Amino acid sequence: MSTVIRNGTIVTADLTYRADVRIEGGIITEIGADLAGDEVLDATGCYVMPGGIDPHTHLEMPFMGTYSSDDFESGTRAALAGGTTMVVDFALPAPGQGLMDALAMWHNKSGRANCDYSYHMAITWWGEQVFDEMQAVVEQGITSFKHFMAYKGALMVNDDELFASFRRCADLGALAMVHAENGDVVAELSARLLAEGNRGPEAHAYSRPPQVEGEATNRAIMIADMAGVPLYVVHTSCEEAHEAIRRARMQGKRVWGEPLIQHLTLDESEYFHPDWDHAARRVMSPPFRNKQHQDSLWAGLQSGSLSVVATDHCAFTTEQKRFGVGDFTRIPNGTGGLEDRMPMLWTQGVNTGRLTPNEFVAVTSTNIAKILNCYPKKGAVLVGADADLVVWDPEKTKVISAGSQQSAIDYNVFEGKEVKGLPRFTLSRGKVAVADGEIRTEEGHGQFVAREPRPAVNRALSAWKELTAPRAIERSGIPATGV
Amino acid sequence: MSTVIRNGTIVTADLTYRADVRIEGGIITEIGADLAGDEVLDATGCYVMPGGIDPHTHLEMPFMGTYSSDDFESGTRAALAGGTTMVVDFALPAPGQGLMDALAMWHNKSGRANCDYSYHMAITWWGEQVFDEMQAVVEQGITSFKHFMAYKGALMVNDDELFASFRRCADLGALAMVHAENGDVVAELSARLLAEGNRGPEAHAYSRPPQVEGEATNRAIMIADMAGVPLYVVHTSCEEAHEAIRRARMQGKRVWGEPLIQHLTLDESEYFHPDWDHAARRVMSPPFRNKQHQDSLWAGLQSGSLSVVATDHCAFTTEQKRFGVGDFTRIPNGTGGLEDRMPMLWTQGVNTGRLTPNEFVAVTSTNIAKILNCYPKKGAVLVGADADLVVWDPEKTKVISAGSQQSAIDYNVFEGKEVKGLPRFTLSRGKVAVADGEIRTEEGHGQFVAREPRPAVNRALSAWKELTAPRAIERSGIPATGV
Amino acid sequence: MSTVIRNGTIVTADLTYRADVRIEGGIITEIGADLAGDEVLDATGCYVMPGGIDPHTHLEMPFMGTYSSDDFESGTRAALAGGTTMVVDFALPAPGQGLMDALAMWHNKSGRANCDYSYHMAITWWGEQVFDEMQAVVEQGITSFKHFMAYKGALMVNDDELFASFRRCADLGALAMVHAENGDVVAELSARLLAEGNRGPEAHAYSRPPQVEGEATNRAIMIADMAGVPLYVVHTSCEEAHEAIRRARMQGKRVWGEPLIQHLTLDESEYFHPDWDHAARRVMSPPFRNKQHQDSLWAGLQSGSLSVVATDHCAFTTEQKRFGVGDFTRIPNGTGGLEDRMPMLWTQGVNTGRLTPNEFVAVTSTNIAKILNCYPKKGAVLVGADADLVVWDPEKTKVISAGSQQSAIDYNVFEGKEVKGLPRFTLSRGKVAVADGEIRTEEGHGQFVAREPRPAVNRALSAWKELTAPRAIERSGIPATGV
Amino acid sequence: MSTVIRNGTIVTADLTYRADVRIEGGIITEIGADLAGDEVLDATGCYVMPGGIDPHTHLEMPFMGTYSSDDFESGTRAALAGGTTMVVDFALPAPGQGLMDALAMWHNKSGRANCDYSYHMAITWWGEQVFDEMQAVVEQGITSFKHFMAYKGALMVNDDELFASFRRCADLGALAMVHAENGDVVAELSARLLAEGNRGPEAHAYSRPPQVEGEATNRAIMIADMAGVPLYVVHTSCEEAHEAIRRARMQGKRVWGEPLIQHLTLDESEYFHPDWDHAARRVMSPPFRNKQHQDSLWAGLQSGSLSVVATDHCAFTTEQKRFGVGDFTRIPNGTGGLEDRMPMLWTQGVNTGRLTPNEFVAVTSTNIAKILNCYPKKGAVLVGADADLVVWDPEKTKVISAGSQQSAIDYNVFEGKEVKGLPRFTLSRGKVAVADGEIRTEEGHGQFVAREPRPAVNRALSAWKELTAPRAIERSGIPATGV
Ligand SMILES: [Zn+2]
Ligand SMILES: [Zn+2]
Ligand SMILES: [Zn+2]
Ligand SMILES: [Zn+2]
Ligand SMILES: [Zn+2]
Ligand SMILES: [Zn+2]
Ligand SMILES: [Zn+2]
Ligand SMILES: [Zn+2]
Repeated sequence: MSTVIRNGTIVTADLTYRADVRIEGGIITEIGADLAGDEVLDATGCYVMPGGIDPHTHLEMPFMGTYSSDDFESGTRAALAGGTTMVVDFALPAPGQGLMDALAMWHNKSGRANCDYSYHMAITWWGEQVFDEMQAVVEQGITSFKHFMAYKGALMVNDDELFASFRRCADLGALAMVHAENGDVVAELSARLLAEGNRGPEAHAYSRPPQVEGEATNRAIMIADMAGVPLYVVHTSCEEAHEAIRRARMQGKRVWGEPLIQHLTLDESEYFHPDWDHAARRVMSPPFRNKQHQDSLWAGLQSGSLSVVATDHCAFTTEQKRFGVGDFTRIPNGTGGLEDRMPMLWTQGVNTGRLTPNEFVAVTSTNIAKILNCYPKKGAVLVGADADLVVWDPEKTKVISAGSQQSAIDYNVFEGKEVKGLPRFTLSRGKVAVADGEIRTEEGHGQFVAREPRPAVNRALSAWKELTAPRAIERSGIPATGV
Repeated sequence: MSTVIRNGTIVTADLTYRADVRIEGGIITEIGADLAGDEVLDATGCYVMPGGIDPHTHLEMPFMGTYSSDDFESGTRAALAGGTTMVVDFALPAPGQGLMDALAMWHNKSGRANCDYSYHMAITWWGEQVFDEMQAVVEQGITSFKHFMAYKGALMVNDDELFASFRRCADLGALAMVHAENGDVVAELSARLLAEGNRGPEAHAYSRPPQVEGEATNRAIMIADMAGVPLYVVHTSCEEAHEAIRRARMQGKRVWGEPLIQHLTLDESEYFHPDWDHAARRVMSPPFRNKQHQDSLWAGLQSGSLSVVATDHCAFTTEQKRFGVGDFTRIPNGTGGLEDRMPMLWTQGVNTGRLTPNEFVAVTSTNIAKILNCYPKKGAVLVGADADLVVWDPEKTKVISAGSQQSAIDYNVFEGKEVKGLPRFTLSRGKVAVADGEIRTEEGHGQFVAREPRPAVNRALSAWKELTAPRAIERSGIPATGV
Repeated sequence: MSTVIRNGTIVTADLTYRADVRIEGGIITEIGADLAGDEVLDATGCYVMPGGIDPHTHLEMPFMGTYSSDDFESGTRAALAGGTTMVVDFALPAPGQGLMDALAMWHNKSGRANCDYSYHMAITWWGEQVFDEMQAVVEQGITSFKHFMAYKGALMVNDDELFASFRRCADLGALAMVHAENGDVVAELSARLLAEGNRGPEAHAYSRPPQVEGEATNRAIMIADMAGVPLYVVHTSCEEAHEAIRRARMQGKRVWGEPLIQHLTLDESEYFHPDWDHAARRVMSPPFRNKQHQDSLWAGLQSGSLSVVATDHCAFTTEQKRFGVGDFTRIPNGTGGLEDRMPMLWTQGVNTGRLTPNEFVAVTSTNIAKILNCYPKKGAVLVGADADLVVWDPEKTKVISAGSQQSAIDYNVFEGKEVKGLPRFTLSRGKVAVADGEIRTEEGHGQFVAREPRPAVNRALSAWKELTAPRAIERSGIPATGV
Repeated sequence: MSTVIRNGTIVTADLTYRADVRIEGGIITEIGADLAGDEVLDATGCYVMPGGIDPHTHLEMPFMGTYSSDDFESGTRAALAGGTTMVVDFALPAPGQGLMDALAMWHNKSGRANCDYSYHMAITWWGEQVFDEMQAVVEQGITSFKHFMAYKGALMVNDDELFASFRRCADLGALAMVHAENGDVVAELSARLLAEGNRGPEAHAYSRPPQVEGEATNRAIMIADMAGVPLYVVHTSCEEAHEAIRRARMQGKRVWGEPLIQHLTLDESEYFHPDWDHAARRVMSPPFRNKQHQDSLWAGLQSGSLSVVATDHCAFTTEQKRFGVGDFTRIPNGTGGLEDRMPMLWTQGVNTGRLTPNEFVAVTSTNIAKILNCYPKKGAVLVGADADLVVWDPEKTKVISAGSQQSAIDYNVFEGKEVKGLPRFTLSRGKVAVADGEIRTEEGHGQFVAREPRPAVNRALSAWKELTAPRAIERSGIPATGV
């Protein structure tokens, strides 16, 4: 059976042109004028774009004996509803747990996914087993390793562990990733705030100021440079971190930054809301920042110093959030966003003129597909690519509301925001998962996307590091004398 | 008749994959496995890439009653020999000359071109006629306007003229371009150097220090921002100018910088050579800089803060250079590079690991095709694109020498440099112009490439400027009183 | 007769200690414990500091056939009331007027001054006469030359004139000063705003955005560097200009920036006030900026990248301001501040902890005395120094109000601000001009302060420029050949 | 008995004037014209300046069972020979050793000092005892605490310890100091270099690249900011660290950087010397850098972003250096410089025009006296100040040579450098310790200098931090509901 998308304008990261798209067997088989097929999707007045890729989700993430409330089913359903056709989740080994073991657990959860997915593997502790299994993980198609510089006493790794793991990544041709906040300082600030009676959700923001993120970002960049590995900084939320990334890039270092849609569009005043629930529902790390930081992030997307817009989707219900009443450090960290990322970015980015439609595609899909080395299988509108597509209606509007969302939680941090620009159709490997607001997702349709190590950037960086490696001085007779 | 490129690896700005390419009627008609055609070009072991685009040449440029020595015939022959399949030259109206008049003169010269070409129009004076004819020029498909901030008393325009012309560009959806050096200061420094007895070619470098370029770059950026137009800075040669561009980009401004292959690979010590001819042959503006500036430019290409590698090819013979014996200000400004840009950049960029092969394609071809809005007709390996292609043999080597070059001049600023990575074939709209070192160019084969105004970046910038435009305050009763 | 200040704490730019001060003949004659004298001023609980120096005033400045409303009498009376004991005014030659001629006019006005004063000479046009008279001006003790990069068609000078004048300053051992805004762009923006119907005072701010000031600052710095002269940038109001200054300083350039007390404490929202008079009274160039710019200026004072706090005191009455009803470009530029600078800076700087008391003295007095080379005659509490002193009561408060001010105008831009920290006594060369709120100024008491050229910074810069000057390459036989 | 310095020109951090100086009882008792005294020192043609203060020495420092070879006697003798009249050494507690215990050990060593001295206390481990004894240390007049971010497994402290100690410093009104290199990364790089066969002294430099210092500097700054304490970064050797300091200062943070005379004047090529001894004698941390870093440091001194020039004097003989033959990590770290700092800085700084004589005094003496809160007892030429003075002959020259030095070691890293500008006399509290090349030091003459905590900068910073401290949001009823 074939599906044809008719009368649309194809918009990719670098092209805008009118053409129809034919899909067979989940793959794009033809792009051209006047194509015919068994099923026809009318894209009149719409843009046909690569489906979004959200490289930063935590679906069904274990937390204090329970789980984040969106699992691979509801999470990917929300994703598709908003035009996102692939998610990349984080496999999180418990302390001492083997990487392959954790991977098996994640594969188990993702069986219910409605769209394709991949994983990053987190390095939450260090040892010979981890070192060894990193290779096996890469062989399984997982070529990106996440490191937490925060969450002291839990997920956090120290600088020597970072360095060792980054070097291993370099050797394996993998990508190093970091959650960049100085965990020692966050822990001390948190303790002090609690001691001083600052116990509400706003203290979460106070405990993780921009400087703390900027510092860790800067540190990760140095360590990656010493290890000779490309670095991807997740949830870059502030000018300080962005500055560190820009500074690295201006020296030719291979570093990418990922702002979240939340940080681009919401600010710290949310935490000062008199309603505890309102504030607590916005608790995530890093916290929302002020307007100056937002301007910095937008400019980063415009100039290319920041590369990807993600969500860090990690949905906790109000009930779960209330674990932290009276102690902000116990509020589960995370907000939703999977369904809203694309419309919010289009509305506040493209409709304002900050981003071109092509840049929109780049930062929501194509850039990360390249960085994660699954392009052009994903992130492209090309013959042979997976038919992960969104037919985008730039005139369609709605007001975001928890009442009508796919996510399993009972609120939405974008509640009340009006968006203009929404999917008419979303296709996951050719399957129409969303049609004009109607959800037709199929549980279990999603497949794991394996990725190859050693993309061109890794090879180039390794060549340069080899070329410029320290050379021993030849000396005749040691000790020699002289002055 | 069809031509097939067989057994190569296609390398574009964002893809690397094995496929054959079929060409008919000068156009790419198919990309796939095992293609057949009337003529077969063997690309075994080679990369099949978009032909280079050099957006900065001065062929047969009028100068002191004579002309730069490479004309559209020899210049484009040299280009093709080095893998470049399109040049963009500058139409330079004389003072008081109409733009359409100048355009006619340039069209007349380019009839002998061996490869495709386009023009930028220079704004060398200002007046109602210029204002009016800018629209006609755009309608002719020339959508980029160059402004000289140096060459006082000749090509230079002042800030108010810059601003007026930039605003006109904004209204027409065109691209503003600048040669950025402070012409007033250059003139004063030159006079002073001559007065102090500094009359040799090295004084040319002394008269145009990096600060002078950085200042003008910064100024052009501000004026473009005020006028609401994207800006392209030609021949960015130094950290100071690059810093200004980075700073602008980090604020979301739409600015691109263009380093030359000369500035990337040659340094100021050339001017200190005891042989006057050696030094004078390297005289160009801006002059070569030191190693720190080179590092800055390379990092710019790596990070994306600089976008395009060009040549400013403007070839004068030794005899012409000697006009300036005893007075450096009379040495004709310009060096060659059209034939050497691609091999030099591959050798010093890709072979060292500073650039990936994809980045090489981006900075030699695809980026400028996008900026000048002739992508994907040019700069792409896509079905429907012009078959401007280079089959690149990464193992082929040579030593650059004036003795074996296509350019009409009697020396080469890269003399003696060994390059590894050279064209096996170069195709201009399907015509094999270079085959394994054999030149088969056809005079007059080249065609003019017209370009559309108002690309997406212009439209986005205009939208943003409209959104953030100053608003008048409503006041009831003026004057009001109060404190 | 001797005067003794008893029981105070002396605070200078680098010392804080308890001591009495004895004054005879207008000079400090002794500093020590338990001093006795004919007249005793009780400084119990107070700081004894060098009187403020305001290096940027326009008293009785000619404007459209009238004058700014504070003359040397009322202006210096206001100064003394606020703890400022010296002003430096700008002698402004009319187009074509000789410098010495202008100087005579200014000397004529200043005869009524209540405190000491000096001048900067403005270079408002260029020619042989100006070049020649600059030397005479220096010989008269005026060693700083101001240049306007804005006010096109009136005071503005072009880049070649700037360069020529800066070189002359370098040769004379003088200080170059600039009002840094791009006058061409301001003129174009103003015309455009008027054409678009933006005619109110807020359009004054729109017509001179921070970028326009940043650009000119950057340009002046480059030109000063090429000319080899130290540079003083007046009324640095924004991050863009401050950034240019920081960048220059980080390269070892000798550049100082001068924020105004207005820009430190008032913001652009003043121009959006519904009362036209309110807004118009705040019209000055550069205009007030937003809070981010204020933060930048404060940090500059803290770190030393900005050096001096001034006022640009140029007082126009509401009636004068109303020249510009219906056309913002006709609103006379200028605000008051002489009386308020010290208390406002103490309140918002020292009382908040942004500045130490010593830093307060540095930026209000000592730094500029050093820069202008009249230290330690002025700006010091040392034996032999002029007894220009303020006895500062850190507990004294008031609410600023036009109703109780010394200035001749009918409003105050700081109206309603509460200040804590005010003079108990102000002494001008030993004369008690202000005593506990009582004004005892003496018209004509003020004297002209002549200054020597070639301070240490000029000499050092000249030495460095000589050491690093371009050197001609020795060549045997020109033209030589070779490749 | 009185001593008079006659016919000299007094040069301080902010004044240059002709006057004689009378000294009695080790104190300056009069400054004026034509003074008489029992002993007369002829300063004709000389500058009379505050004696140098070297805030960074390691005299008789324990090392691998032996000691650095210059003790308080030879070290201070070398200091005086070069015009330095005070040193500040580091008391280094062994792991687990109490601070007061270490202090007693250092007091014991310093009994032989020829000039005055003070200490910084190092925090080499953390615990309740350390926390408690910090107060006792401050009460003993030692108000600066040093922290090592390198030397893993020995002196290094982690981020949480840094934060805890910095907060303690803030509470005590003390100064936080850091040796800033990332010790984890240095350890890993060192191990890797050894493993790869890089065992010579050059590998010491390879193991501590500028990025590693820049990172740690940036981290220390963030932690100090969070703790609300001023920070002093010792031996700032590179642009990366300087950049971090500049960036902090441009945000108003209270951070100072200290380049060493070695880093200002010697470069990394020393480590590539074919003579092992030559290279090993230059091994110190951070290592020497390249010329670009030197330019950065000089510019920092010019602009004020760097504040103090020190030596990190820690002298090991060639024999001691040879502990590290075959394993660079065992070469004792340290070089000399006490005798050479002032002449080298004068020669390369003042004689070139990079620094004024006043700036020379500031960076060698006055600035650090202020930072360490012992000004104007030290670092001043004022009545009442200690008569620690140097009579500086700007015409005197010599060639530096180990053969004629005071230091106990057998070489000099500045061997062969010609200096112009040397002491004619050096006085330690009035005692003539050096007279025209003759050494007249007196063992044990030196006294401990106690310092007060809570200087103005600490008080201001604390006020600002209090003013901007996080505030809890008032909420009625938790949990509240709403969206
Ligand atoms: Zn995270
Ligand atoms: Zn996350
Ligand atoms: Zn040019
Ligand atoms: Zn050109
Ligand atoms: Zn002005
Ligand atoms: Zn003014
Ligand atoms: Zn150290
Ligand atoms: Zn040390």
